[in-house]
Amino acid sequence: MTKPRPKTLLAMGRAVAKRLVTDDVRERLVAVADIDPDLVIDDFAGPAVAEALAGAEVLYTSWWCPPITHDVLDKAPGLRAVVHAAGSVKHHITEACWQRGILVSSAAAANAEPVAEYTLASILFANKRVLDIARLYREHRAPLELDVRFPGFGNYRRTVGIVGASRIGRRVIELLRPFELDVLVADPYLTDDLGVPHVELDELFERCDVISLHAPSLPETRHLVDAGRLARMRDGATLINTARGALVDQDALIAELARGRLYAVIDVTEPDLLPADSPLYDLPNVLLTPHIAGSLGGELPRIAHLAVDELARYAQGVPFLHGVEAEELARSA
Amino acid sequence: MTKPRPKTLLAMGRAVAKRLVTDDVRERLVAVADIDPDLVIDDFAGPAVAEALAGAEVLYTSWWCPPITHDVLDKAPGLRAVVHAAGSVKHHITEACWQRGILVSSAAAANAEPVAEYTLASILFANKRVLDIARLYREHRAPLELDVRFPGFGNYRRTVGIVGASRIGRRVIELLRPFELDVLVADPYLTDDLGVPHVELDELFERCDVISLHAPSLPETRHLVDAGRLARMRDGATLINTARGALVDQDALIAELARGRLYAVIDVTEPDLLPADSPLYDLPNVLLTPHIAGSLGGELPRIAHLAVDELARYAQGVPFLHGVEAEELARSA
Repeated sequence: MTKPRPKTLLAMGRAVAKRLVTDDVRERLVAVADIDPDLVIDDFAGPAVAEALAGAEVLYTSWWCPPITHDVLDKAPGLRAVVHAAGSVKHHITEACWQRGILVSSAAAANAEPVAEYTLASILFANKRVLDIARLYREHRAPLELDVRFPGFGNYRRTVGIVGASRIGRRVIELLRPFELDVLVADPYLTDDLGVPHVELDELFERCDVISLHAPSLPETRHLVDAGRLARMRDGATLINTARGALVDQDALIAELARGRLYAVIDVTEPDLLPADSPLYDLPNVLLTPHIAGSLGGELPRIAHLAVDELARYAQGVPFLHGVEAEELARSA
Repeated sequence: MTKPRPKTLLAMGRAVAKRLVTDDVRERLVAVADIDPDLVIDDFAGPAVAEALAGAEVLYTSWWCPPITHDVLDKAPGLRAVVHAAGSVKHHITEACWQRGILVSSAAAANAEPVAEYTLASILFANKRVLDIARLYREHRAPLELDVRFPGFGNYRRTVGIVGASRIGRRVIELLRPFELDVLVADPYLTDDLGVPHVELDELFERCDVISLHAPSLPETRHLVDAGRLARMRDGATLINTARGALVDQDALIAELARGRLYAVIDVTEPDLLPADSPLYDLPNVLLTPHIAGSLGGELPRIAHLAVDELARYAQGVPFLHGVEAEELARSA
């Protein structure tokens, strides 16, 4: 390398760092940057941190990195870039960062992968009624009248609706290509051709057997799935939410699920950890998981590696492959 | 059409016919063949059936078609072909059919599709521990220490083993391509390159996080997964069986699952309907379904259409695209 390796600091939760910075990642970080991989900053206050910040050119961040405020930037006059080894940068990249022209990269592309995988598996299982049949088989321990219970079930010529042509929504559409399913997409900002019909949201709710949400959480998408939209869904249809709890009117969803007309796969709720008496825990027609569709456990190194790739590009003076601009943020998760 | 449409009879279970012969399929059948789509034979005895058989050139069969014996063939001297709208032809195509040179086609290719889909979804959910996490969340209603319970979980750089390079096994390998998973295949008869490492069965059992069975049920594959092979599996690994119950020593599997070391997705058992006291119903680390991975419900028309395609080829004097030869049968499901 001709340029000196950029002075880089790790800023993220300590528990996150333990799982993110595997031996592989550590080795690559040290090769690419001037970094102490044992120093993990989870709080920008204090004199020791001030000293580290004073010389930093890049922050390699992840979940639980505190907001990078004017105050923090004042202590880090040489900071040029933030490479984020996680998805959304909304929690730590402040207006101040944009004002000072800090370059920002996000590993959202790598984080999209597991969410799209969880969604794909949920769609295939939902159309085939796998979890419902497993539950009934356990209950009855006898032959089940599947065709009576689930008319026309299976993954052939069923219609899947993708709400939001986000990175994850697009990846789900791509992953659905090998299957004989009709895919529709709804997104008010979509202008390019994704190879599947682009329809209005209400039409999507009326036509689909499975509907999966991949829209950002914004004031205008709050309760995008309300009682009215739920009522438009076909009998036996499944709603999948791996995006954000705020997209769905949760009370309306619970009421509709309690009537037994619909199914749901719910990975995100409001609040994120449901109270112990939430009906969502007990409704048989729900697969409920605690916000796990994104990168976890053994999936964190994928994100870490992508962020190291970005750091390497920065070090060599090459633009980020996954740069984030201030303007995009208004419309993204 | 220049040739006369071949006289064709439907032979299958009546309940099967109802779901298989949709309006679409019926219309195509009548266009291609000289057929009464309301006459469904599920028993080759009786004088009315004898009359129908006497003029038949093709049998369009499916599940619950009785065996086509010498006796049946004696009553159908003009029979030239059997087009099977289902997977295996082992139950109704007898030695007598081969001896008389009856042409046989099977829709196993279409039937492979849903099994591969079920398997793919099971693999993605197994690596991510989706069902285990859902169960724990319902039980605890509190944050779960996922990294402690499921070290390294997720669908990144995990190893998936495919046992049997059958049509379904190959399709699963294909469907796994978009994901960052390492795939291994074991098959003693495999000679072509499937683009993934070909290993011995024991090695596959030792190296994989998920193992999926796609081998035929033959005397030499009976209990291919026995106590010894189960013991070779890694802690926390998942066994998927959508093939045949006989491939697995079920008692050994139950004993291993009861110890909690492994996970399983079991769609086929011995017997097919388990006794009500089978531990497989209650073990928390098992997803148990009643032989549903294959074509069911709304998936049957896919098979029916493929068989009509084959009938159309026969009618036009073109060889079957999915012809079955007597020799292949010895090594297939």
